[in-house]
Amino acid sequence: MSFHDRPVFPRGFHAASRNCGLKPTARDLALFVSDVDAAAAAIFTRNHFPGAPVILGRETIAGGRLRAIVANSKVSNVANGARGLDDARRMAAAAAAEVGTSPDRVLVSSTGVIGIPLPIERIERGIRGMSGDLTDDPLVGAEGIMTTDTHPKAMSVGVSDATITWIAKGSGMIEPNMATMLVYIFTDAALDAATLDAMLREAAESSFNMLSVDSDTSTSDTCAILANGLAGPVPTGAFRAALVAGCVRMTEMLARDGEGATRLLRATVRGARTTAEARRIAKSLVNSPLVKTMVHGADPNVGRVLMAVGKCVECTVVPASTDAWINGTPVVRRGTRLDFDEAAVRATLGTETVDLEVALGVGDADATAYGCDLTKGYIDENAAYYSS
Amino acid sequence: MSFHDRPVFPRGFHAASRNCGLKPTARDLALFVSDVDAAAAAIFTRNHFPGAPVILGRETIAGGRLRAIVANSKVSNVANGARGLDDARRMAAAAAAEVGTSPDRVLVSSTGVIGIPLPIERIERGIRGMSGDLTDDPLVGAEGIMTTDTHPKAMSVGVSDATITWIAKGSGMIEPNMATMLVYIFTDAALDAATLDAMLREAAESSFNMLSVDSDTSTSDTCAILANGLAGPVPTGAFRAALVAGCVRMTEMLARDGEGATRLLRATVRGARTTAEARRIAKSLVNSPLVKTMVHGADPNVGRVLMAVGKCVECTVVPASTDAWINGTPVVRRGTRLDFDEAAVRATLGTETVDLEVALGVGDADATAYGCDLTKGYIDENAAYYSS
Repeated sequence: MSFHDRPVFPRGFHAASRNCGLKPTARDLALFVSDVDAAAAAIFTRNHFPGAPVILGRETIAGGRLRAIVANSKVSNVANGARGLDDARRMAAAAAAEVGTSPDRVLVSSTGVIGIPLPIERIERGIRGMSGDLTDDPLVGAEGIMTTDTHPKAMSVGVSDATITWIAKGSGMIEPNMATMLVYIFTDAALDAATLDAMLREAAESSFNMLSVDSDTSTSDTCAILANGLAGPVPTGAFRAALVAGCVRMTEMLARDGEGATRLLRATVRGARTTAEARRIAKSLVNSPLVKTMVHGADPNVGRVLMAVGKCVECTVVPASTDAWINGTPVVRRGTRLDFDEAAVRATLGTETVDLEVALGVGDADATAYGCDLTKGYIDENAAYYSS
Repeated sequence: MSFHDRPVFPRGFHAASRNCGLKPTARDLALFVSDVDAAAAAIFTRNHFPGAPVILGRETIAGGRLRAIVANSKVSNVANGARGLDDARRMAAAAAAEVGTSPDRVLVSSTGVIGIPLPIERIERGIRGMSGDLTDDPLVGAEGIMTTDTHPKAMSVGVSDATITWIAKGSGMIEPNMATMLVYIFTDAALDAATLDAMLREAAESSFNMLSVDSDTSTSDTCAILANGLAGPVPTGAFRAALVAGCVRMTEMLARDGEGATRLLRATVRGARTTAEARRIAKSLVNSPLVKTMVHGADPNVGRVLMAVGKCVECTVVPASTDAWINGTPVVRRGTRLDFDEAAVRATLGTETVDLEVALGVGDADATAYGCDLTKGYIDENAAYYSS
C-alpha cells in the first residue's frame, strides 16, 4: 500500500476549525462531520481520572454510530465534577444542532490544561456557524486540535476503492496504555461497528499502545474510527493491513513530534519468553531517561541499554543469551560489550531515527515500542505549561 | 535521637581516598577499614545485569563478616564478562593485602560508566599504601565514591554508647527497587549478621527502596552495614529506630542531590487499599516527568497530580473519594479541583522541599516516596556522560 503525498478525506467527510477564544489567536476548536451516519468504534484512556468527554464518549460510542466529532484544545475538561459532565453534554448538543443530528451521534474531546473549568459559552458560540466553514482538507481539522504539537498531523491511504484518513495530535503526557492522545480515523469503507471495534483494538495494540513520549498517561486519550460506507465494502484483509500500517506510521509521527523531541526512538525486542515481556522491555527502553538522554546526546552508551533491559526484574532475562544492536551495529553479544566502532555508531545516532534492538534468546515473542529523545525542550515546555 | 552536626566514625572505623588516575584529578578510589572483623549484611541491585562487584559481593556477604570496603568511581565494572569478575577479585585481593585480611572479608564496589573495562592495574597501584592514609573523617571516604554527586554525603547518630554512620553516593540511574546506589553504614554496636540483615532490609523498605531520581535502576546498587562491636551491645529497639531514621534522612539527602535536582519531592499516599498500592502510587508521583517538571516550574498543576495517581490502572482509585494537598494546602476534594489560592501554593512550591499528599479513602495503607524535580541540568549531565 502507498500513503498519499498529501492527506485527503474519504468521501463524505469534512472538517472545519477556528479560534473561539481559548488560545490568543491560534485555532482551538475543530469539527469533523460525515454527510451520513457512520458506523463507529472508539477506545479511551484507562486513567482512573478520565475527563468528562471520555466519560460521555463511552456512553456515546455504545450506540456504534457517529455523525460528527467536536474537539477543543487548550483546556481539557478533567476533575471538574458534575459541572464537567454537563459542559461536555452541552458541547455535544451544540455540535449536534449545528450539523443537524442528535447529541448521541457526536463524540466530544477536550485536551489541554487539566482541572480548570471549560469555558463552555465561548465554545458554544464558536461552534455556531461552523458547518458553513467545512472543507475537504484534513489538515484544517488537525490544526484545530493541536496543543504543544509543532505541526498538524494527518495522512491518508487507499484500500481498493476506499480511503482511510488519520487525524491526530500529540505530544506530551503520552503513554496511552490502550489508546492514545487524540486519533480520529475516517474511512468511506463499509464496515459495521463491531468489526471496526475489533480491528481498532488490534491495530492499537501494536501501535498507539506501544508509544511513550514521557511515560505519563493522559486523562483524555481517545482513539475513534468512523466508517460511513460511501465507498461500499472492501476486502477485510487489505483493510486490516492498511489500518495497522497507518496506525504504526501515525505512532511514529507522534513519537517524532514528542514534546521537545529531535529523534524517533524505536526499540525492538526479539526472542522474549512472552509477548507481554517483549512489550514490557521494549517500553522500558523507550521510557528510560538515561537511554533517552543518551539518544539525544548521540552517545553509544551500551551500559544504559543493558540497564534498561535488566531493570525489568519481573521478566526472564539471561545475560549469557542477550545480544544488542544500535542502528544495526552489534554492540553486545552474550551479555558482554563488544569492541565496536564507536565513531561510526555515534554518527548513526545523530540521524533522525534511532533503532535499538535486543535479542533475549529465551523465547519467540517480539515487540516494538516507539518513543523519542529527552531534551531541554521537554523541560521548557513542561516547567511552565500551566501558567503559560 | 539527634544527628551529629558533623559526621564521625564509630570506634575502630577509618577511611582513605585518593586519585588513582581514573578521573583527571578528583579522588576516584576509597578504602573503608575496621580495626577488627565486623558482622555484616548487604543488599544489592535486582537488575538482571549486575556488575561484577555485585556478583562477587553476593558471594562475599554470605560469610557475614567484613574487614574492609574498597570502591572506585568513574568506571563501573558491568557487562565485562569473565574478565570483569577477575578484575573484581583482583581489587578485593589488593585491598585485603593492603589491610592484612583475606579477600573474602573485602566488599568491592565500582560505579560510573558501564561497559568499558576496569583499569585494574591503576586501581591496584592506587590501593598500595592507602592504609597509611587512613583518617577518622567519613567525608574523606565519601569523597572517593562520588560520581555526579555535587557533594560528599555522610552523617552520624548516637545510640546509647554506640554510633551509626552512613556514607553514600547518588545521584542518577536511581530507582533502587531493593537497595540503592552505594550506601555504607558503619556502627560499633555489637549485633550479629542475621540481625543486621533483617534490620537493613526493613529499613531499606521505607527509605532507599522508595527513592527514585529517574526511574532507572543501576546495575551496581549496593547497601551494606558493618557492625564491629567495639561499643558493645545496644538496645535493639533504639538501634532499629535510629537505623530507619538515618536511612530515611540519607534517602532525602540523595534525592535532593539527584542529577540536576533543585528540590526534594516527597509524595505521601494515605488510605490505599494495600501497602503495595500505596507504594506504587507514591512512586508514580515522584517518577512522573510531568509532576517533576511542574515542581521544577513551581506550577501548581493539580491535573498532573491526579493524572499520575490515575495512571496506576492496576490500583484501586475512586475519584469520588480522592483528596489531595500540595504543601499542606487542600487542592482536590472528592476528585474535583478546589478553588485554592494559587499564588500562595506557587510560593510554597518554590521552597526547597515539596510535599504532595494524596488520600485515597479506600483503605488503611500508607507510603512515602522520595524524588526530585526534573531540570535541564539532568539533560546536560546525561546527554554526554559517556564521552565526557
